[in-house]
Amino acid sequence: MEPLAALEAALPPGTVLTDPDLISSYRQDWARDPDAGTPLAVVRPSTTDEVATTVKWAAAHHVPIVPRGAGSGLSGGATAVDGGIVLSTERMREIRVDPITRTAVVQPGLLNAEVKRAVAEHGLWYPPDPSSFEMCSIGGNAATNAGGLCCVKYGVTSDYVLGMEVVLADGRVVRLGGPRLKDSAGLSLTKLFVGSEGTLGVITELTLRLVPAQLPQATVVASFDSLTAATDAITAISSTMRPAMLEFMDGVAINAVEDEMRMGLDRTAVALLVARSDAPGEFAEREAVLMRELCEKHGATEAFHTADPEDGEAFTAARRFAIPAVERRGSLLLEDVGVPVPKLGELISGIASIGERNGVIVSVIAHAGDGNTHPLIVHDPTDPDNTARAHRAFGEIMDLAIALGGTITGEHGVGRLKKAWLPDQVGDDVIDLTRRIKNALDPDGILNPGAML
Amino acid sequence: MEPLAALEAALPPGTVLTDPDLISSYRQDWARDPDAGTPLAVVRPSTTDEVATTVKWAAAHHVPIVPRGAGSGLSGGATAVDGGIVLSTERMREIRVDPITRTAVVQPGLLNAEVKRAVAEHGLWYPPDPSSFEMCSIGGNAATNAGGLCCVKYGVTSDYVLGMEVVLADGRVVRLGGPRLKDSAGLSLTKLFVGSEGTLGVITELTLRLVPAQLPQATVVASFDSLTAATDAITAISSTMRPAMLEFMDGVAINAVEDEMRMGLDRTAVALLVARSDAPGEFAEREAVLMRELCEKHGATEAFHTADPEDGEAFTAARRFAIPAVERRGSLLLEDVGVPVPKLGELISGIASIGERNGVIVSVIAHAGDGNTHPLIVHDPTDPDNTARAHRAFGEIMDLAIALGGTITGEHGVGRLKKAWLPDQVGDDVIDLTRRIKNALDPDGILNPGAML
Repeated sequence: MEPLAALEAALPPGTVLTDPDLISSYRQDWARDPDAGTPLAVVRPSTTDEVATTVKWAAAHHVPIVPRGAGSGLSGGATAVDGGIVLSTERMREIRVDPITRTAVVQPGLLNAEVKRAVAEHGLWYPPDPSSFEMCSIGGNAATNAGGLCCVKYGVTSDYVLGMEVVLADGRVVRLGGPRLKDSAGLSLTKLFVGSEGTLGVITELTLRLVPAQLPQATVVASFDSLTAATDAITAISSTMRPAMLEFMDGVAINAVEDEMRMGLDRTAVALLVARSDAPGEFAEREAVLMRELCEKHGATEAFHTADPEDGEAFTAARRFAIPAVERRGSLLLEDVGVPVPKLGELISGIASIGERNGVIVSVIAHAGDGNTHPLIVHDPTDPDNTARAHRAFGEIMDLAIALGGTITGEHGVGRLKKAWLPDQVGDDVIDLTRRIKNALDPDGILNPGAML
Repeated sequence: MEPLAALEAALPPGTVLTDPDLISSYRQDWARDPDAGTPLAVVRPSTTDEVATTVKWAAAHHVPIVPRGAGSGLSGGATAVDGGIVLSTERMREIRVDPITRTAVVQPGLLNAEVKRAVAEHGLWYPPDPSSFEMCSIGGNAATNAGGLCCVKYGVTSDYVLGMEVVLADGRVVRLGGPRLKDSAGLSLTKLFVGSEGTLGVITELTLRLVPAQLPQATVVASFDSLTAATDAITAISSTMRPAMLEFMDGVAINAVEDEMRMGLDRTAVALLVARSDAPGEFAEREAVLMRELCEKHGATEAFHTADPEDGEAFTAARRFAIPAVERRGSLLLEDVGVPVPKLGELISGIASIGERNGVIVSVIAHAGDGNTHPLIVHDPTDPDNTARAHRAFGEIMDLAIALGGTITGEHGVGRLKKAWLPDQVGDDVIDLTRRIKNALDPDGILNPGAML
């Protein structure tokens, strides 16, 4: 019996896809890695046992496995490899919410938005909110330690994962952590697996910490005619209080959004900030007024606030829509560099210089309150010269972030697209440490080979 | 030249202690491990370089190293081993606070309270607050992933460590993470080292996340004549809102505290809850009233609230004083078991049965809001039979916590005293995973041998 036939026989019918047309859509994630390989098969298990069966088979036959959530990753973490298996968790969609302990036990294939909706029925909230929350999976969020807009106040995915079930490289199933807010028993393996991008194991279940529903938010919108004024306002706000959101859009993004949404944004502005407070009762508006005043004090050309949550949501939606809006201008290389907040101005102005020098448009949007930016490099993939310049800019932006004491990725992960820069950020000794852990847990290197390392 | 003389020559005078009288006080931490060995020397470095020199020397000569903070650990994590080095961080006491990024860079020997005071000068707050915060070190807090009273709302040490400098088992110095709120670059090694109890490396510097100063708190105190009523109130409060503190004391602890402090606590009560809110403005008192009402609804015999922060602080101090107060009754074996909050009643009543069955007094105090309890087993170390029964109870309490889906340690770490129970909690496969990581990072096993594994 052919090896793959043995796997097909061991799993329910329809679990293993080999039709070239069907599997071609699993070759890449949103990073559209041009070096994506052609997998042997796509396996779509429904249960942990089926995942374990698949991994055991792969281990026995030395077949690489690329775990895949919803395929919305932006770093090529789910790029297929030639002759490997893409293990898609899309069919693993169960959730149990326990309102008493305020935890949810979820399978990895559920979308972030589906988790939010299921827990909201119990008056609860799962905070992490990537801009892609309507189409990214909770398993992918855990694999990349995803962030979002509210993280400036509420933290990232790692802060909400209390436990997990993982299938290890040899097919063994282990449980790490559990529904306990405090647990110091042994190494913090749960936290190690969060953000490990499928290189240490396949997450088959997550135990998530939930918090009470977010309170209604008050919102501030402020325009600036200078970058310095905007970044001064950001630093002033973030060293004075804890906004529930503090977002930045540059002029390119403002115009791209205005083209699509006609919200009356100031097209001449160099920067737009959208900030929110979810403090209780009238404190939300008080904090919004304070933020508006700080924007005005630091030179906003226009600033207003609203205590109406829906009006505020419109501006948040505009910010969330910035990436697709800029994408209308051309294909995007999407960055995720972060720096300490006081370095934000230096990073953004440096990115503008990099764009100019390489002759490409780079629009910057940012989760400004935690220093995490998304420079969007607009390019034309049909033009090799333009594409080469875009890729050069892509690398230079990461070099700049590293030089400013920052990170090449705040919330998307390293994947395959950024791994060449990881040693420059963390140093060779940390790469050695990482490799030792990888080798200890996956000695044959079958789990997501080529990602991160 | 004798090996130790080479180390002495490589370090500043006075760094290496070998006088038996001086080093005897470094043999044990507060766990008073009776199996503590006699170290070759105590090394008290002042700089990272001196730590690296010490570890390199130890690696070259296969000498075990036991890292030690303030020696206030309760699990024997800093028990000395025969012929080894105790590496005390007590002289590493620098701190730099950056109010703009709200971070602090601290050396490990600073006490938790000293960190709190230094950042408070900038209007900032480092939340984790072990009861021992006046005498435990921040490095020890990171090594054990220490918790405290405010963790029910604000999380544990791991939630506040953004980065660190670590000396690895071969003496190399690496930096992990940094002053960035979001960072998905590579494996989450920072989080792995938090809670690793000195078994993977020696932490020589921590980058801590800070938050704005805590707001004034309103406080509720409620007495109960039944355990069920008290745990029902705890579950009701913790599934309704997020108190900034939710603490439990049983009748033994109430009487021990009242003996010492004369606060007018109800000596006939079976349980006392002390809960606080730090919501802004009048919301603190509103939340306190809500908690009082939930206590009354679930059968409190007496309940009151105060919006006066100092009055509230007196009750918090009483709760903090419970361990020393109970210690007046005899020597203590101090547990740290945790369960999901709805299992708290079952855990506490089960502990009472274990105490009765073994003929020892067990007083339970608890960080009730996160299910983390500290059963205090009172015993007489001069009475071998009594001591044997106390140790039997110690094990049975951990067995019970595991059976209830809980943990053997919520915030103290495994150390040497609880390691026999770790496999029962996490399973053999997780122990294997732990051992693989340990072997990958410390192949010669020189770092804190005998702790955790």
